[in-house]
Amino acid sequence: MALLKSEVIDIVRLALKEDIGTGDITTSAIFVGTEPGNAKIIAKDDGVFCAGMLPDYIYGELDPSVRIKYLKEDGKIIHKGEIAFELNGPAASLLTGERVMLNFLQRMCGIATATAKAVQMLAGTGITVLDTRKTAPGLRAIDKYSVKMGGGHNHRFGLFDMVMIKDNHIKAAGGIIPAVEAVRRVHGSRYKIEVEVTGEKEVMQALDAGADIIMFDNMDMDIMASCIALIGEKAKTEISGNITEDRLSALKNLKVTYVSMGALTHSVKAFDLSMQFA
Amino acid sequence: MALLKSEVIDIVRLALKEDIGTGDITTSAIFVGTEPGNAKIIAKDDGVFCAGMLPDYIYGELDPSVRIKYLKEDGKIIHKGEIAFELNGPAASLLTGERVMLNFLQRMCGIATATAKAVQMLAGTGITVLDTRKTAPGLRAIDKYSVKMGGGHNHRFGLFDMVMIKDNHIKAAGGIIPAVEAVRRVHGSRYKIEVEVTGEKEVMQALDAGADIIMFDNMDMDIMASCIALIGEKAKTEISGNITEDRLSALKNLKVTYVSMGALTHSVKAFDLSMQFA
Amino acid sequence: MALLKSEVIDIVRLALKEDIGTGDITTSAIFVGTEPGNAKIIAKDDGVFCAGMLPDYIYGELDPSVRIKYLKEDGKIIHKGEIAFELNGPAASLLTGERVMLNFLQRMCGIATATAKAVQMLAGTGITVLDTRKTAPGLRAIDKYSVKMGGGHNHRFGLFDMVMIKDNHIKAAGGIIPAVEAVRRVHGSRYKIEVEVTGEKEVMQALDAGADIIMFDNMDMDIMASCIALIGEKAKTEISGNITEDRLSALKNLKVTYVSMGALTHSVKAFDLSMQFA
Amino acid sequence: MALLKSEVIDIVRLALKEDIGTGDITTSAIFVGTEPGNAKIIAKDDGVFCAGMLPDYIYGELDPSVRIKYLKEDGKIIHKGEIAFELNGPAASLLTGERVMLNFLQRMCGIATATAKAVQMLAGTGITVLDTRKTAPGLRAIDKYSVKMGGGHNHRFGLFDMVMIKDNHIKAAGGIIPAVEAVRRVHGSRYKIEVEVTGEKEVMQALDAGADIIMFDNMDMDIMASCIALIGEKAKTEISGNITEDRLSALKNLKVTYVSMGALTHSVKAFDLSMQFA
Amino acid sequence: MALLKSEVIDIVRLALKEDIGTGDITTSAIFVGTEPGNAKIIAKDDGVFCAGMLPDYIYGELDPSVRIKYLKEDGKIIHKGEIAFELNGPAASLLTGERVMLNFLQRMCGIATATAKAVQMLAGTGITVLDTRKTAPGLRAIDKYSVKMGGGHNHRFGLFDMVMIKDNHIKAAGGIIPAVEAVRRVHGSRYKIEVEVTGEKEVMQALDAGADIIMFDNMDMDIMASCIALIGEKAKTEISGNITEDRLSALKNLKVTYVSMGALTHSVKAFDLSMQFA
Amino acid sequence: MALLKSEVIDIVRLALKEDIGTGDITTSAIFVGTEPGNAKIIAKDDGVFCAGMLPDYIYGELDPSVRIKYLKEDGKIIHKGEIAFELNGPAASLLTGERVMLNFLQRMCGIATATAKAVQMLAGTGITVLDTRKTAPGLRAIDKYSVKMGGGHNHRFGLFDMVMIKDNHIKAAGGIIPAVEAVRRVHGSRYKIEVEVTGEKEVMQALDAGADIIMFDNMDMDIMASCIALIGEKAKTEISGNITEDRLSALKNLKVTYVSMGALTHSVKAFDLSMQFA
Repeated sequence: MALLKSEVIDIVRLALKEDIGTGDITTSAIFVGTEPGNAKIIAKDDGVFCAGMLPDYIYGELDPSVRIKYLKEDGKIIHKGEIAFELNGPAASLLTGERVMLNFLQRMCGIATATAKAVQMLAGTGITVLDTRKTAPGLRAIDKYSVKMGGGHNHRFGLFDMVMIKDNHIKAAGGIIPAVEAVRRVHGSRYKIEVEVTGEKEVMQALDAGADIIMFDNMDMDIMASCIALIGEKAKTEISGNITEDRLSALKNLKVTYVSMGALTHSVKAFDLSMQFA
Repeated sequence: MALLKSEVIDIVRLALKEDIGTGDITTSAIFVGTEPGNAKIIAKDDGVFCAGMLPDYIYGELDPSVRIKYLKEDGKIIHKGEIAFELNGPAASLLTGERVMLNFLQRMCGIATATAKAVQMLAGTGITVLDTRKTAPGLRAIDKYSVKMGGGHNHRFGLFDMVMIKDNHIKAAGGIIPAVEAVRRVHGSRYKIEVEVTGEKEVMQALDAGADIIMFDNMDMDIMASCIALIGEKAKTEISGNITEDRLSALKNLKVTYVSMGALTHSVKAFDLSMQFA
Repeated sequence: MALLKSEVIDIVRLALKEDIGTGDITTSAIFVGTEPGNAKIIAKDDGVFCAGMLPDYIYGELDPSVRIKYLKEDGKIIHKGEIAFELNGPAASLLTGERVMLNFLQRMCGIATATAKAVQMLAGTGITVLDTRKTAPGLRAIDKYSVKMGGGHNHRFGLFDMVMIKDNHIKAAGGIIPAVEAVRRVHGSRYKIEVEVTGEKEVMQALDAGADIIMFDNMDMDIMASCIALIGEKAKTEISGNITEDRLSALKNLKVTYVSMGALTHSVKAFDLSMQFA
Repeated sequence: MALLKSEVIDIVRLALKEDIGTGDITTSAIFVGTEPGNAKIIAKDDGVFCAGMLPDYIYGELDPSVRIKYLKEDGKIIHKGEIAFELNGPAASLLTGERVMLNFLQRMCGIATATAKAVQMLAGTGITVLDTRKTAPGLRAIDKYSVKMGGGHNHRFGLFDMVMIKDNHIKAAGGIIPAVEAVRRVHGSRYKIEVEVTGEKEVMQALDAGADIIMFDNMDMDIMASCIALIGEKAKTEISGNITEDRLSALKNLKVTYVSMGALTHSVKAFDLSMQFA
Repeated sequence: MALLKSEVIDIVRLALKEDIGTGDITTSAIFVGTEPGNAKIIAKDDGVFCAGMLPDYIYGELDPSVRIKYLKEDGKIIHKGEIAFELNGPAASLLTGERVMLNFLQRMCGIATATAKAVQMLAGTGITVLDTRKTAPGLRAIDKYSVKMGGGHNHRFGLFDMVMIKDNHIKAAGGIIPAVEAVRRVHGSRYKIEVEVTGEKEVMQALDAGADIIMFDNMDMDIMASCIALIGEKAKTEISGNITEDRLSALKNLKVTYVSMGALTHSVKAFDLSMQFA
Repeated sequence: MALLKSEVIDIVRLALKEDIGTGDITTSAIFVGTEPGNAKIIAKDDGVFCAGMLPDYIYGELDPSVRIKYLKEDGKIIHKGEIAFELNGPAASLLTGERVMLNFLQRMCGIATATAKAVQMLAGTGITVLDTRKTAPGLRAIDKYSVKMGGGHNHRFGLFDMVMIKDNHIKAAGGIIPAVEAVRRVHGSRYKIEVEVTGEKEVMQALDAGADIIMFDNMDMDIMASCIALIGEKAKTEISGNITEDRLSALKNLKVTYVSMGALTHSVKAFDLSMQFA
């Protein structure tokens, strides 16, 4: 369930190129050879750890002689001061890769930690926390993996693995029912179909069309409640749109299946980690 | 002074691949041909606009027939409800590229807006706001461009364009002076040299070594003040390390040259923009 | 619904590189300049046409001054002697790109033609023809597009867009029910779940587990019939495994939802097309 | 004489990306760790085995801990039920790479098997079986290697390694002799020159021009016979164009040097192989 | 006969990346917009011009609005002070691409000029000047094109388009004859075969084996003369190894077919060109 | 201080592709398996050795089983007949990679040797030898590393790591002072600023503007002398433009900081090395 190298190697290479470019002029001037080094990655705050094998993939590109030993599994709580993993290898290589690695990890742990908090706020409600496609460009796989490690679930990965019919599709097709029919004509029943609705009338159309999931985007609380009642068990439901922590509390009593939160990945608060040499 | 296509095209391609993958199954099922579309990008909040030609580069990859007309220049204030730019082209193409484009722009405007706020808080002090290398992986050029558009200055781009001697380099070289000497031996006077110090004793060594910039990392207020006095005009000075808005106010009276803020790019708050079809 | 450039450009570039390599030594020696050329692509047999914009993408890489005018739409019948499309541009460029373009098209039309034949054999039965993942390496998008143009439907694109639980998964999970549960735990209800079964007992387990589609792989006719009866409307059904034309006829009376045919893409008979200069 | 990694790694990576994309959602949900696995690749039919180290290259990208032990050499007969090779490594990795590997191998063994059959039909005649450039896009090196393993010889690899003067070149140059002269002017005698002819008159011109090989494309039997007599030992000869098994028998008595068969690679019949777990 | 974009685009992109990297910090600071510019490329010496469309390919990547007008054709004499071509487009773009373009052209014209000199020294002898594989890494196509523009001919492009049997191959095969036989067994008569010999005995073996070309590597003058006499018209002959201008004169009376000169491409003297703004 | 793999791997891959292409047809026909080989790289002349780990990177791509043992360090004198390093591995692999490796090394040692000679000619003068951006396309990192190994220093790597204000920038900005001001406005004091001057008047302006380095391009000896006197310790000075060995002697008595020599990398004389099998 870890990240495959093939899913992340392109962004890892891009990140190394943009940071190292024509060489680490400081480290290469000071370290003349391959003095061995030993470093620890330490949490500077409390949160959820998430690395997804990135340290291995990053140093695998930079210097394959670096060895990494994880002391903390992905998805586990980490406390301020705890060691997440250790690195052994040439000190110069460890230093040269430090920032790129921390840039990945501070984001991943940040996402996992924020997700865990949202999941906990909805504990006992039966509502599932989802991510969105509002991820940092090039980091989709990594951002979504981090949400999963924080206890959230993944919404569709991209435009290719689930049908999501939004207002502009509905307008172009001439209604929800013809839009769903167009999709069925091309794809049969291969994909789950989600339809975005603005009110009860559209909920009825989505149900008639046989939508699997019905999404309420930025809707008023009471309209959502009556829509959810209308739907019952006939489809799954999702609330979306500017879901902040404050709004999460308000949603707790709705019988909705999913809450999707763009902020988990579009407004990440970096988790503080540091690399300390022995 | 705009972003060159060659600086960002790799991450643009990665972002399009991860989102579109094997095709936009919803849009391609509903739009049968190349119905023309007309859309506006509208700010949902007040902030600083920043696009860096990304809309052109993104749609240039996706569908070169899309035309973009900017109504707002990079670095200018944008108000809630204002139109930033307009897009004309096949409606299906506009829809398929929407999320990737907004993912870039919500981050860029978010960074520019936060930078402008920090710059304004230091207005009149003579202190320059800098970014750091704590950017999202693969987005270095874009993140740093956004800082510049918000009125900040760019610190070094990567490990290759400026010398930055940190604690581990000092330890490995056996002191600040031998570290700077090692750098001069290899690079002559080609690069500016910045040295990270922990107190007055190291400040003296850095001055003796002829450092161009002296950096205080996570240091106490009063120690910084005396270090700054010690340095006078002999070198430029930089404060770094967990600079939040609160700490910014406290720093206002220090006669420091630079304040570098990792949070500008590692903990971005997305700026809200939406795409509306005519 | 056409093929996006981003879906096929990598294989187009690979195909051009492997064929042209260090240059077309024959054509470049004989054509000294950019003599204009005019060529027609003509069917040498009856079948279903399918080009998916590949001629545009191929010549777009090779010589963007080449203009293409399609006389036949994808998915339409083409007869021996009919012109599919015309090319205008430097004669040397047309010649240099000829074989690469025909190699794509002979395969695409071949797949579309074979699919149309299978679809026709099942006409009136309500059974849908599906493709499989048994495509030529690197040609997945193109092979599957060709099946669609021949009137078939696409099964999952790859390992990422649908869950397919096979014997080895079942063995590893300790049964169909725990396998489906493991999937639900990780992915929720985001993906359709298909389960491969070997007999009635497994059909019951798959139904209990709530599988969306139940697949019979290389099963005897009468066992399939009783399995289908058992399933009724509770799930969709799929027959797979060495489905030749002969076996298709035999399947016509089964009340199955899908027949998936690997041969459509793993054993393609090239459709004969030729390029004729005016 | 094996396939070099550098010749095939691009298509291997493309094939893995298109199949695995954002991850194997089934296997990664069911296998939690790195349970060891042991699998055999077994022939489901009789034919000629051909793998060209592809299993090593594929799993080398996917999971370098997978070990492969070949029991059958490339080019050797394999019988239904025989084990071609064994794989050891994490069961999840073996499963995730299964289809991509089999897609390569079913094509390679299919080509080798069909080639061997054609070679056998011409046994004792002194006629050499050649392939053509009518290969699947991106698979040129692999398709041609498979022909060689089936006992055939390779015609030119692409447009760059041999001169082939066809009708359009002849027309543009104003005849066979000026066409050959143009080639000699540019390339000297560095490349073998093959000329396509339509009858005895052109044969005489090709001989005058000093062609190394003279090709008869889709020509009548008796005209070919008289052309071959005319040529004698002065050049090598090649028959090309829609050579099916039926036509092969008819050609047996011609004193031709080569028969080139597009069908070997443009209309491949997949060879059936399966992966069985121990 | 020009360089195709696909043959050189990779090295063009590499050259632009290594020079421009994260941006032209000088030009982008001084030019605020797209002020139009007009520049001429002027020869600073006498020589042979050679550009191979590289200016188009380079500015095509950098700024497609730049227009280039060639006043001098490839392979033509250019005199000191003459204008080779003119560029029109944004002044900032012209400046940013200047060095990369000149780095290509100074090498290309240098090679063409040196080749023309060698060709002239052998004028009237019937000896053809060849290049070798001793080119700058990544510049094979460009270096060989430049030799051709200087009036030389190209030897094999790489290891893939001609057979060249050297001492280590002979040793491994157990002699020239078994080496040639091994090649014929695998490749038939598809490629020209060249054999490197050290004296008359090996010449006889090479002739027996039917070599197309016999190469004398670093051999004494009189031994070469007797070898050439021995060979007569039975094969073509090539002299290779440290052929300087001095040695060229000495070779003039030998009846050899080719002289190959590594120095043409491994020890290039840059041709001086400059870019002048109007 | 060695070359990182990430700095050179792209050009290494390009060089291998262009030379090996579709395979080494000679070696692969003669060597049937993996016969072990043992080879030595021997200097054929006296000079400075420079390999920068390239042999490891090249064979790492080609055949990772090849082992390399260096007997000579980069930057050390090597004499004719001395062994630079040894290679062990399959003989066929050693042969296939030989030319690509030697093409890199003959250039690198050639640059290091020429640089060492220039450095020695200026020994005792205090003048530092610099390279320029006049490198072979794609070989910037390698060319500049070789200069360093020869005892020279590196000027700016590209357009991105130092400001260099030339005549066209001065003209566009309206003078040296506004040009430097424009740079400071955008980049602050982050980069060293070098200004190219044509005489004393511009020297005064450059000093007023606070330039770090002042460059004299192709200037007369006595004007340079008076400019240098004018500058004194206020800035560093650089002489550039067609610096040949002859002109170097003439410059010895000038109190200049740097002499930059384009010829070190634009007109390389290959250093002769050969590979000998044991």
